[in-house]
Amino acid sequence: MRTGSHKLGLILIRNPPAPSAYECVARVQGEIHNPKLNRMQFSFELIKRAPVSSARVGKIVTPHGEVNTPVFMPVGTQATVKTLSPSDLAELGAEIILSNTYHLFLRPGHELIREFGGIQKFMSWNRPVLTDSGGFQVFSLAELRKITEEGVTFQSHIDGGAKHFISPEYAIEVQQALGADIIMAFDECIPYPSTRDYAQESLERTLRWAKRCRDAKKDSGQALFGIVQGGMHPELRKRSADALVEIGFDGYAVGGLSVGETKPVMYEMIEATVPHLPEDQPRYLMGVGTPEDLVEGVERGIDMFDCVMPTRNARNGTFFTSFGKVSIRNAQYERDRQPIDPSCGCHTCRNFTRAYLRHLFNAGEVLALRLGTIHNLFFYLNLMRGMRLSIEQGSFQEFKKGFLAKRENIDS
Amino acid sequence: MRTGSHKLGLILIRNPPAPSAYECVARVQGEIHNPKLNRMQFSFELIKRAPVSSARVGKIVTPHGEVNTPVFMPVGTQATVKTLSPSDLAELGAEIILSNTYHLFLRPGHELIREFGGIQKFMSWNRPVLTDSGGFQVFSLAELRKITEEGVTFQSHIDGGAKHFISPEYAIEVQQALGADIIMAFDECIPYPSTRDYAQESLERTLRWAKRCRDAKKDSGQALFGIVQGGMHPELRKRSADALVEIGFDGYAVGGLSVGETKPVMYEMIEATVPHLPEDQPRYLMGVGTPEDLVEGVERGIDMFDCVMPTRNARNGTFFTSFGKVSIRNAQYERDRQPIDPSCGCHTCRNFTRAYLRHLFNAGEVLALRLGTIHNLFFYLNLMRGMRLSIEQGSFQEFKKGFLAKRENIDS
Repeated sequence: MRTGSHKLGLILIRNPPAPSAYECVARVQGEIHNPKLNRMQFSFELIKRAPVSSARVGKIVTPHGEVNTPVFMPVGTQATVKTLSPSDLAELGAEIILSNTYHLFLRPGHELIREFGGIQKFMSWNRPVLTDSGGFQVFSLAELRKITEEGVTFQSHIDGGAKHFISPEYAIEVQQALGADIIMAFDECIPYPSTRDYAQESLERTLRWAKRCRDAKKDSGQALFGIVQGGMHPELRKRSADALVEIGFDGYAVGGLSVGETKPVMYEMIEATVPHLPEDQPRYLMGVGTPEDLVEGVERGIDMFDCVMPTRNARNGTFFTSFGKVSIRNAQYERDRQPIDPSCGCHTCRNFTRAYLRHLFNAGEVLALRLGTIHNLFFYLNLMRGMRLSIEQGSFQEFKKGFLAKRENIDS
Repeated sequence: MRTGSHKLGLILIRNPPAPSAYECVARVQGEIHNPKLNRMQFSFELIKRAPVSSARVGKIVTPHGEVNTPVFMPVGTQATVKTLSPSDLAELGAEIILSNTYHLFLRPGHELIREFGGIQKFMSWNRPVLTDSGGFQVFSLAELRKITEEGVTFQSHIDGGAKHFISPEYAIEVQQALGADIIMAFDECIPYPSTRDYAQESLERTLRWAKRCRDAKKDSGQALFGIVQGGMHPELRKRSADALVEIGFDGYAVGGLSVGETKPVMYEMIEATVPHLPEDQPRYLMGVGTPEDLVEGVERGIDMFDCVMPTRNARNGTFFTSFGKVSIRNAQYERDRQPIDPSCGCHTCRNFTRAYLRHLFNAGEVLALRLGTIHNLFFYLNLMRGMRLSIEQGSFQEFKKGFLAKRENIDS
């Protein structure tokens, strides 16, 4: 148990409370590797705003450490960012990762992870973690869903179609067992396209679920974020944002985007949402996106992103570079002695040629997946570093212009 | 081209020749990372012999660095030790790896690797490499083999059954293109069981092939090892060893073992071979074996080993430990907070529990394969370190006794 009350939306770093007896014992036993662990309450500090856009630099403080924003969160669905060890992630400079409640709930089970002291200890990653609520996966992976006011009944995609039921309260209980630093309200992510009527009906239910999540959450030291829904309807987005702020959360996510709509519509929905969110709290654009999306999102005031794109593409042999995409299986790279991106400083580009990586992919060698993942995540994390630096220096627009100009092919 | 003549079987470290113009340019360009690269000729130094067995400690010097023997060579079939990067291997303390000529010949092709300056540069491993001759794979993986005095015609197992022909001269040419520090003569590895007549007929042909390999090899700076065959017939093993020594090689391998025979027969064949090999040259037991096999082999005077067992077993979730095997998928490990082997100092055991590794295997996560491989190779390399140290200290028999006593289950 962590001491100290957990207020909503406070932008203030409390004085750390004196360590509890448990903490003292744990420290003596060496269980707590991070000296800040269990001492910091969640907070967000807005450090700098760009002069001609909504771009901003900030800092999130969590029980497992600090996160500089805008931040990209690598996706570690099953308590591992696929192919990487925690030391790989640390070397890449990842400050926070996302893990999927739906998957961990099914396997190995949240109670097992609770026994191990939470996902950080379970996977040996002593830094911040965010878990989603499972809602997105229930609506995209599971079968035979039945939505009621109470929650969702579904058949899982892995355990022989066993039936499960998740309510807002249960989603919070599972996430409290998983122990991530930031947890998410349980929401419905509606299909695209959906009618306005369904978007509104679903939105209102998701708002009632959000309130139930807020009420169900114990003083676990975890931050709880609400999720703005509302389909592709600006007025529903506003309605959702206003109502969530009224309930009060530690941060706000923009959900239900990058589900098939065009880029202009996605950017419009971000613009229809962000102005209605508190400036002094973090804003998280869920499941987005391409490098260009990250730049456009930051420009519109987003602080946090997650997406499987860099990791999944890497495992398909598609690499992000400053000049567009490299599909490493192409015959043109057979005898190519250059690294994936000659301007990249990642471990892969410092050590391996395109020809060697192409050979590994063609030969079905597992090392290819890791080396590609290292490169793509480095590219994403480096892009975020570049954006943070340019905002701090007041040159975000120049950064954006230069970044887009160099990329010959748009990744989409 | 490396300068200096390459004599057979010399146990003397020559003064390094002055660098050639090419080497100077290469060094200026930073292509040569290892300062000893291209300077040392192959040699073997016998450092210490055990008092009551044939166990011995030595040092092999190659163009890419030194190798302390007895040594275990991780298998990097397709120019990668499966799941590991070269920096992983370096961290594990691997001093030399083995790669398979047959696989590299088929994919990506030896000429491509020649263009890249050899396998070390191609895979970014600036330490010693040994390539086998391809013989074993031709006889175990390929189809429709036809053996003539000239060589072997076969259909490959990967490129749609294309026909290939490998002669002793071509096996050497391919290995010269691959550029390993140690290359192997082309031999026939006969099936088990084989008749004495066939064993002898094959052996005599393999001896003629060995002479052709010796004659075909250019002054490439590579060491060439002969391979003792002769099935399970002690007198044929002696005949093979004597004839190979007569031809003269830089080292001698014991081939055709661990093919289905019992352990006592395998040990008997080693004992029937080693006494007929020069004491001042390295002896390499090919494709062997279990941890117990390594100990028994070292006791009988073997200096070098390779085997896919640690890496392949790791990918199946079977781990070697000081107390026997751990099959990590077993339900008993579901909530087990211990590392694979509490007495192990590898990266995996220092950071991850059995429960987490079991979860990774059950969830099909690629990270499991790498963490397991790191552990198993650490176990093998650590075993070799322990044997070297005990021989140096004159306590190999005690080491062997203690090692075997601790292992409750024999790995086989």
